[in-house]
Amino acid sequence: MPKVAIVMGSDSDFPVVKGAIQTLRRFGVDVEVRVISAHRTPWRAAEFAEGAAAAGTEVIIAAAGKAAHLAGVLAAHTALPVIGLPVKSSTLDGLDSLLSTVQMPDGVPVATVAINGAANAALLAVQMLSLRYGGLYDKLLDYKREMASGVMDKDAALQEEVAKI
Amino acid sequence: MPKVAIVMGSDSDFPVVKGAIQTLRRFGVDVEVRVISAHRTPWRAAEFAEGAAAAGTEVIIAAAGKAAHLAGVLAAHTALPVIGLPVKSSTLDGLDSLLSTVQMPDGVPVATVAINGAANAALLAVQMLSLRYGGLYDKLLDYKREMASGVMDKDAALQEEVAKI
Amino acid sequence: MPKVAIVMGSDSDFPVVKGAIQTLRRFGVDVEVRVISAHRTPWRAAEFAEGAAAAGTEVIIAAAGKAAHLAGVLAAHTALPVIGLPVKSSTLDGLDSLLSTVQMPDGVPVATVAINGAANAALLAVQMLSLRYGGLYDKLLDYKREMASGVMDKDAALQEEVAKI
Amino acid sequence: MPKVAIVMGSDSDFPVVKGAIQTLRRFGVDVEVRVISAHRTPWRAAEFAEGAAAAGTEVIIAAAGKAAHLAGVLAAHTALPVIGLPVKSSTLDGLDSLLSTVQMPDGVPVATVAINGAANAALLAVQMLSLRYGGLYDKLLDYKREMASGVMDKDAALQEEVAKI
Amino acid sequence: MPKVAIVMGSDSDFPVVKGAIQTLRRFGVDVEVRVISAHRTPWRAAEFAEGAAAAGTEVIIAAAGKAAHLAGVLAAHTALPVIGLPVKSSTLDGLDSLLSTVQMPDGVPVATVAINGAANAALLAVQMLSLRYGGLYDKLLDYKREMASGVMDKDAALQEEVAKI
Amino acid sequence: MPKVAIVMGSDSDFPVVKGAIQTLRRFGVDVEVRVISAHRTPWRAAEFAEGAAAAGTEVIIAAAGKAAHLAGVLAAHTALPVIGLPVKSSTLDGLDSLLSTVQMPDGVPVATVAINGAANAALLAVQMLSLRYGGLYDKLLDYKREMASGVMDKDAALQEEVAKI
Amino acid sequence: MPKVAIVMGSDSDFPVVKGAIQTLRRFGVDVEVRVISAHRTPWRAAEFAEGAAAAGTEVIIAAAGKAAHLAGVLAAHTALPVIGLPVKSSTLDGLDSLLSTVQMPDGVPVATVAINGAANAALLAVQMLSLRYGGLYDKLLDYKREMASGVMDKDAALQEEVAKI
Amino acid sequence: MPKVAIVMGSDSDFPVVKGAIQTLRRFGVDVEVRVISAHRTPWRAAEFAEGAAAAGTEVIIAAAGKAAHLAGVLAAHTALPVIGLPVKSSTLDGLDSLLSTVQMPDGVPVATVAINGAANAALLAVQMLSLRYGGLYDKLLDYKREMASGVMDKDAALQEEVAKI
Repeated sequence: MPKVAIVMGSDSDFPVVKGAIQTLRRFGVDVEVRVISAHRTPWRAAEFAEGAAAAGTEVIIAAAGKAAHLAGVLAAHTALPVIGLPVKSSTLDGLDSLLSTVQMPDGVPVATVAINGAANAALLAVQMLSLRYGGLYDKLLDYKREMASGVMDKDAALQEEVAKI
Repeated sequence: MPKVAIVMGSDSDFPVVKGAIQTLRRFGVDVEVRVISAHRTPWRAAEFAEGAAAAGTEVIIAAAGKAAHLAGVLAAHTALPVIGLPVKSSTLDGLDSLLSTVQMPDGVPVATVAINGAANAALLAVQMLSLRYGGLYDKLLDYKREMASGVMDKDAALQEEVAKI
Repeated sequence: MPKVAIVMGSDSDFPVVKGAIQTLRRFGVDVEVRVISAHRTPWRAAEFAEGAAAAGTEVIIAAAGKAAHLAGVLAAHTALPVIGLPVKSSTLDGLDSLLSTVQMPDGVPVATVAINGAANAALLAVQMLSLRYGGLYDKLLDYKREMASGVMDKDAALQEEVAKI
Repeated sequence: MPKVAIVMGSDSDFPVVKGAIQTLRRFGVDVEVRVISAHRTPWRAAEFAEGAAAAGTEVIIAAAGKAAHLAGVLAAHTALPVIGLPVKSSTLDGLDSLLSTVQMPDGVPVATVAINGAANAALLAVQMLSLRYGGLYDKLLDYKREMASGVMDKDAALQEEVAKI
Repeated sequence: MPKVAIVMGSDSDFPVVKGAIQTLRRFGVDVEVRVISAHRTPWRAAEFAEGAAAAGTEVIIAAAGKAAHLAGVLAAHTALPVIGLPVKSSTLDGLDSLLSTVQMPDGVPVATVAINGAANAALLAVQMLSLRYGGLYDKLLDYKREMASGVMDKDAALQEEVAKI
Repeated sequence: MPKVAIVMGSDSDFPVVKGAIQTLRRFGVDVEVRVISAHRTPWRAAEFAEGAAAAGTEVIIAAAGKAAHLAGVLAAHTALPVIGLPVKSSTLDGLDSLLSTVQMPDGVPVATVAINGAANAALLAVQMLSLRYGGLYDKLLDYKREMASGVMDKDAALQEEVAKI
Repeated sequence: MPKVAIVMGSDSDFPVVKGAIQTLRRFGVDVEVRVISAHRTPWRAAEFAEGAAAAGTEVIIAAAGKAAHLAGVLAAHTALPVIGLPVKSSTLDGLDSLLSTVQMPDGVPVATVAINGAANAALLAVQMLSLRYGGLYDKLLDYKREMASGVMDKDAALQEEVAKI
Repeated sequence: MPKVAIVMGSDSDFPVVKGAIQTLRRFGVDVEVRVISAHRTPWRAAEFAEGAAAAGTEVIIAAAGKAAHLAGVLAAHTALPVIGLPVKSSTLDGLDSLLSTVQMPDGVPVATVAINGAANAALLAVQMLSLRYGGLYDKLLDYKREMASGVMDKDAALQEEVAKI
């Protein structure tokens, strides 16, 4: 069974992260969810990342806000792909989180998604896992089809609303 | 043999993209390099992305500047993971490229790396591929070790320079 | 009868787009309103834009938020003028939408209006149509006169308020 | 013969504007080019815009930098469509020009293109004119085809360069 | 009696502008308050500014949001000092208003104050007027003294609050 | 004779400030030019501002870069109008200087001009002085006329250049 | 007993500053809290900073918003370390406060913490004081341990919540 | 003898860091200079910071660019004060470095100085050390006096230059 670990820097990031958990489960991915702070529990972060591959984790999603170092710190300690999920905090509208996550120096990439883009972090993880688990690839195609038909349904539904204006 | 396609929106992005080609080859990854514009050759972009999986491509890297839609457009047409490489252009210092690439709406993620971060785009692709090709994972560990020892050599070399000040 | 198509990337953009529909109808312009996502329904977007001219559409207004690719994608598939309406989303205050819409590379312009500037998107469409439909030009002159007299009325009304301070 | 007026706020904008003149002529559009400052020659700007329609001008392109008010001021004085071309100046990388041009209040739209996007300003004007002059629409389709084939040629040419790396 | 005209681009700016009216009256300055839009009533704006000096106005305060051209347009039409008051609107947090107001090209200055800084716009007008009306200078010194003592009172009052923590 | 003091935070600001000196002299204004740092010579800054009015100075222009506190500090110590001239430094393109200068809290305004806008700082000072010295007002009107005719000459000259393209 | 002075530019900053007072007291640091404005009570600011060392103050924390000059002004008048705490105000989301505080010119540093980062301002002060008061260093180590164990508790607690999703 | 460690994330930061070394030596502070990357040599970074206090280091200066995690990572592993020196890199003009360094979450402060502000990083370290080493405090007062007299000399020298204009 494919396995993803979601690490958040603070439990205040949980409301944002929830969407990622739900999306991953929908695809039948095993999810480990952790609160580990790069700044407050640095050894834990290092140990977690160092041991992740051996523990069966295949992709790590790291959610953090402000000077969001978590994704970068985990990426420094593992060769597994790390997805950075910048969380909007109370100032600067997420720009600090985004830049701190995405602007990684050469050698240690973080696969960054949109600010608060939890669902996309999960989908990206599934896409990565689909390289290994062919069944996930088919599920992703289904997902894309459903999304498309959801948009088309809304397109149809809208026509009534427009007529009312 | 693992295979990555690098697509750039304009051949003016080639100097930036070069670093990604070299890094991928170093890891023994087969690289296809294409100039396909989301705006000037939209059908090509759609066809390329739709056919990429069948053609054996496993990861796509999309490099583009300004209103950088290429990565998003390719991701719309494939379930393969798409890595977005925002290219700095002549105005706004790459901020437009970064935001256009990373801020994808739910359902269609783009794995974004730093502005002009070509080497990291390549490394991220290798990390993804390593989920399937175990040998790449070991090469990534070697790469990390070499990087670390490169930094340590520079640390040693610096001591002489510092003594001269 | 002149015809404008308004395409929005998500039905969540409808509250913003409403103002454009109302303004266009006021000028007697036929309005088609659609939900088509550049990322979730890319083929629809391509087909829609490719077929727009033949279907009698003369101007397209595309409303989208975040990494707002919709206007650019439609413009890639048609020679009709495309007006980009950047929609403010929950982060970055619309800056991402604006830059993703306006910073188009050479060859494929998008006529961009202000963030959430739906009324102006409609008026711009009417101005374009007035090149062909002379009657619209006169209506625009009337509209400008009414606007001016609205401002002058407010100027007069304000004098009482000021006296109270 | 279709007619476009290009107005620049200062003759220092001429190097940027040149590309627009060349593109318009390529499409057989008659071009009037003027230096009129919204701030230094405000009456001229008002008179020019008020008289533009009567003088046969069908679209106005306004190029200006910094607090770029030119496009907005012209749009205030005419019902013709006004295209805003924000020019990058020596500070703030064009962000001031862009925001001053695009963020127009309701009632007076400016069709804004990318910073220094002179070719796109011209193409947008041609698209607008094509609503009236059918021949221009066909020329735009040709232009799109040529662009596409230019990109495909570059794609082919690149393969040799890539082989050399 | 010294005279200041406050012009706002829209009556929606009135809540911000109120503070300026009150401050000016406190200093015994005669205040004219007007709603004149640079974009919707451009001739009025021109006429108002052209005639302001003859009408006895000595300083103009112009309040506007978004692509805030009002101060610049008035300054283009008068040699009187024009104070620009950028108003925060619903997007971009006032950055667009600020840059549109302050980044004026050489030759036509606008004396810009902080976003929504209505009281300071008024005080700056009083400082300018004090060059001519000596009595105002003394009132400004009094105002500064009162402000200082207000701060000192708050400093004293705070000590009790601090003790409670 | 009217008198303006130009204070710069560092002599490295002199190349920017020169334009202000020349403009002021052109209008027959007496100019005192000083290097006084709000941070390195704070007492001097305080004393200078406290004594400025008594020394016959009527307007102060303060030029500074980065965390540009000079204008605000001088304004804290005088009731004379203080014009802030934000100087672009080696990072952040002048945005830091601009915000540090213009975003003054209520009670202590700084009349801010564009980044590196030295000529406008001077012209604004002349406009303020013209409230007291009527002759300056006429000179400002002449200046405006000359500017206008300079633009019109450039407009005429451009026509030849355009013909060559 | 170690002593820190917290100075705020306005009593409206008190809610932000409270967290710093509580943190300092927790470490047994004597705290003086003052309202002193760099702009409204400049002499007080100068005198306070000049006399701080003699009054036994060892570190100064300066909290201010908008064009936040307070930290820089105090630093100009003392050789004690000054910690700048940028306060978010009603516009620009704290970016103005941050840049005004941190971008100090060479020679007069301000130790800047995050926007509204009051607890960190206090902790930084304690770290500085710990250079002199060894006991504080041990308390800081305890604090770090408690923080770490708080995070680990939350990590444990979260597992139940995750199970419920 | 007081001791400061300067750690840079890459030897490419050395030209910026040099100024800090020179300033510290001028004050008789013992300086250790290291190249340690938070991302490429994370264990070294952790060990260095964990062992710093025992090795006699009293203050750490961390210089890094882009997603500048170095200062935060070191601060996570030590209770010593850590000064963050954001280094401007090839994109975004240092804004990414600044935000990644300064926006630290509660509990782990980084004392941030201006982008490329190496001299100030050194001076801040000396100020911190002066809490323990009284002699440094006197040297800082001397330094302030010299700076002030340098500015005053430049003020005097400028008068000749001004006379020449």
